[in-house]
Amino acid sequence: MATTVEAAAMRRAISLAALGLGRTSPNPAVGCVVLDATGRIAGEGHHRRAGGPHAEIHALAAAGERARGGTALVTLEPCNHTGRTGPCAQALIDAGIARVVYAVPDPTPTATGGARTLAAAGMDVEGGLLAAEAAAGNEAWLTAVRLRRPYVLWKYAATLDGRSAAADGTSRWITSPAARADVHRLRAEADAVVVGAGTARSDDPHLAVRGFEGPAPQDPHEATGGISQPLRVVLDTEGSAVRPGARILDDAAPTLLAVAQDADTAALADTPADVLRLPRAADGRGLDIPALLTALYGRGVRSVLLEGGPTLAGAFLAAGAVDKVVGYLAPVLLGAGPAALADANIATLADALRLDVTGVDRLGPDLRITAVPVATHTTSGEN
Amino acid sequence: MATTVEAAAMRRAISLAALGLGRTSPNPAVGCVVLDATGRIAGEGHHRRAGGPHAEIHALAAAGERARGGTALVTLEPCNHTGRTGPCAQALIDAGIARVVYAVPDPTPTATGGARTLAAAGMDVEGGLLAAEAAAGNEAWLTAVRLRRPYVLWKYAATLDGRSAAADGTSRWITSPAARADVHRLRAEADAVVVGAGTARSDDPHLAVRGFEGPAPQDPHEATGGISQPLRVVLDTEGSAVRPGARILDDAAPTLLAVAQDADTAALADTPADVLRLPRAADGRGLDIPALLTALYGRGVRSVLLEGGPTLAGAFLAAGAVDKVVGYLAPVLLGAGPAALADANIATLADALRLDVTGVDRLGPDLRITAVPVATHTTSGEN
Ligand SMILES: NC(=O)c1ccc[n+]([C@@H]2O[C@H](COP(=O)([O-])OP(=O)(O)OC[C@H]3O[C@@H](n4cnc5c(N)ncnc54)[C@H](OP(=O)(O)O)[C@@H]3O)[C@@H](O)[C@H]2O)c1
Ligand SMILES: NC(=O)c1ccc[n+]([C@@H]2O[C@H](COP(=O)([O-])OP(=O)(O)OC[C@H]3O[C@@H](n4cnc5c(N)ncnc54)[C@H](OP(=O)(O)O)[C@@H]3O)[C@@H](O)[C@H]2O)c1
Repeated sequence: MATTVEAAAMRRAISLAALGLGRTSPNPAVGCVVLDATGRIAGEGHHRRAGGPHAEIHALAAAGERARGGTALVTLEPCNHTGRTGPCAQALIDAGIARVVYAVPDPTPTATGGARTLAAAGMDVEGGLLAAEAAAGNEAWLTAVRLRRPYVLWKYAATLDGRSAAADGTSRWITSPAARADVHRLRAEADAVVVGAGTARSDDPHLAVRGFEGPAPQDPHEATGGISQPLRVVLDTEGSAVRPGARILDDAAPTLLAVAQDADTAALADTPADVLRLPRAADGRGLDIPALLTALYGRGVRSVLLEGGPTLAGAFLAAGAVDKVVGYLAPVLLGAGPAALADANIATLADALRLDVTGVDRLGPDLRITAVPVATHTTSGEN
Repeated sequence: MATTVEAAAMRRAISLAALGLGRTSPNPAVGCVVLDATGRIAGEGHHRRAGGPHAEIHALAAAGERARGGTALVTLEPCNHTGRTGPCAQALIDAGIARVVYAVPDPTPTATGGARTLAAAGMDVEGGLLAAEAAAGNEAWLTAVRLRRPYVLWKYAATLDGRSAAADGTSRWITSPAARADVHRLRAEADAVVVGAGTARSDDPHLAVRGFEGPAPQDPHEATGGISQPLRVVLDTEGSAVRPGARILDDAAPTLLAVAQDADTAALADTPADVLRLPRAADGRGLDIPALLTALYGRGVRSVLLEGGPTLAGAFLAAGAVDKVVGYLAPVLLGAGPAALADANIATLADALRLDVTGVDRLGPDLRITAVPVATHTTSGEN
């Protein structure tokens, strides 16, 4: 049984893990706290970026000799494989750690088995401490690994009557600066931001993170502070929506143009963006969404922020490919104008997509409603 | 300066006043607490129904001789006029009350002046104690008296994406039993419930209060417990939407059919409902809403629950005739189907109706969002 000191240390490890969100893919965000033999905090660390040392390595380095006979609290089961950084299980053994408490078992086939290795080395190993909290902090990565496609968060902004623009198309700004700043936070936490050709054509969006500073660097020697830019993705079936000079083509962040396998892309010859060829959707409406997600997963993307618009959001929902919904509702009524969500292949109320509201927050004058599809829908997203 | 004992008694008086909501029109809901000369509660009362004794009379009767030398706390300035029940100012003087503390001044020309009468009789009179709380409890009546039209609360039920039904028209039930029960509470608190011909035709609504018990009777001798039924109103320009046998024509509550002055109403000859003839709207879309509200005010209606549908709600909003919005949002996505709000004569975002969110509550799985038009709009409702 974990002690209250250990539980407090695990809570700290969970908050350390969050500092890595949006930077660690394809790895999970992990935090680690090392207690010395007397139960005092000797070292802390988190996984800061893919390719960099794992959380345990940072924490052990900070603890130094004080790790000997101590306890390591880790948000995820220590890895067992020799990737770019060597297995953490071995590092914990080498440092003389006496006991390891982790929150969530590692589901990846290549990394799993760390707990077994530690126990075989005579270490006292316990799993499951604050598992739910730790899993929530790593929700996107855990879901992605389970479904073998990126976790998808659909965000939309709308009026109370569900409009995303007025009748004449004006939509700047329906929501408040506070709500818009929150979207930049979501972008920073995501590995990729996705929009459709309609949004690319009408809004010329930039899609990079601006005005969000991110967590401060923990260690002045490593540049982990500042923002982490997502991959900007446009679903542009015919390769015609993103013209030279589009804001999305600047160098603020990488850009990927997804086009149909048979699209005529002569006009894209000089584009600075990556071009990804995908099959067309079976129903003929644009590109195949499961194929897009598989391709993104293959590129290390574990979390996607779907920014719309309404047509693409409807297609993602119809494909069962939305894991969470964040709606920014402005206390505004319009009575006319395009809806925030278009055709999701739902004809009758019995087929409606039902969600559970998991959070309601005020952001300035606006409301942020967070909701997740009820269980039946979450699993239908498996493909 | 009022004492803390007096403030506590006023708070009690405010909660007593609320028991009368929906029953007292055209009078306000008023509560009164009488403290004896030592500051102990000697009597309590509230105005229970139009035509019945005012709150002060109930409280004085309960206090009896203990009122002498005591203090009366009243949520509204005691009335000065001899209506159906005689002026309360005189009753307070006759009972030997030494001090009167009221929350909100009476704005009605015929009733005002009670405080002056009391002071002239040598009484210690203080106004304004907990005025904001008391005014909030009487918001509908105070607004109605100020604007000389009923206070209008628009309620709607919608999905997160702003739909009031699915593409095939199915809408039972988008919201949960808890949300629907709350609508019955709103009906019980309103003097009238209003719908348009579209809702009458497609839903055959009943519009009476069901399943809401209302406050328990305070006094077994007076039947003030149980529900208070609103006047059911249908805006049916041609007098053709409500057929014989419609549920709204049963005897659960009174019914009013508003039709155009020049409508052919031969088919309504045998209707059990009252028929109200109104001018057509200047823009030709149905009936004139200010004329409807003036007529309802003339019939003693001080608060209207506008239940829609989307077309009529749009017309009320365009007329500046909505004082509060209560939206029941179900965590459901449809992507198709009619919008919760239709044309409100708003073409561009700059003309959007902006609201302030005054409350967000969870009702079962649903959210109830309460909002009021921002100040500029409230006054534009004046006509
Ligand atoms: N309120 C909000 O939160 C929000 C967010 C974003 C955008 N918007 C607004 O939405 C408007 C644009 O709406 P929209 O619906 O046209 O834009 P959209 O959803 O961004 O783009 C739709 C287009 O994406 C392409 N596409 C590729 N694969 C698709 C697939 N599998 N399913 C569906 N579409 C696919 C199609 O065009 P091709 O066939 O040409 O590829 C399709 O017409 C803009 O006015 C923008 O301001 C609002
Ligand atoms: N989600 C909700 O909260 C909610 C609430 C109520 C209804 N509904 C749904 O709404 C649907 C009906 O929608 P609707 O928009 O047709 O119904 P509606 O708003 O109830 O009725 C509109 C009709 O009212 C009459 N009307 C009279 N004076 C008017 C005026 N000044 N302005 C506008 N209309 C006036 C007009 O018909 P005439 O010219 O024939 O008089 C007009 O077509 C139903 O399916 C119902 O289920 C939803």
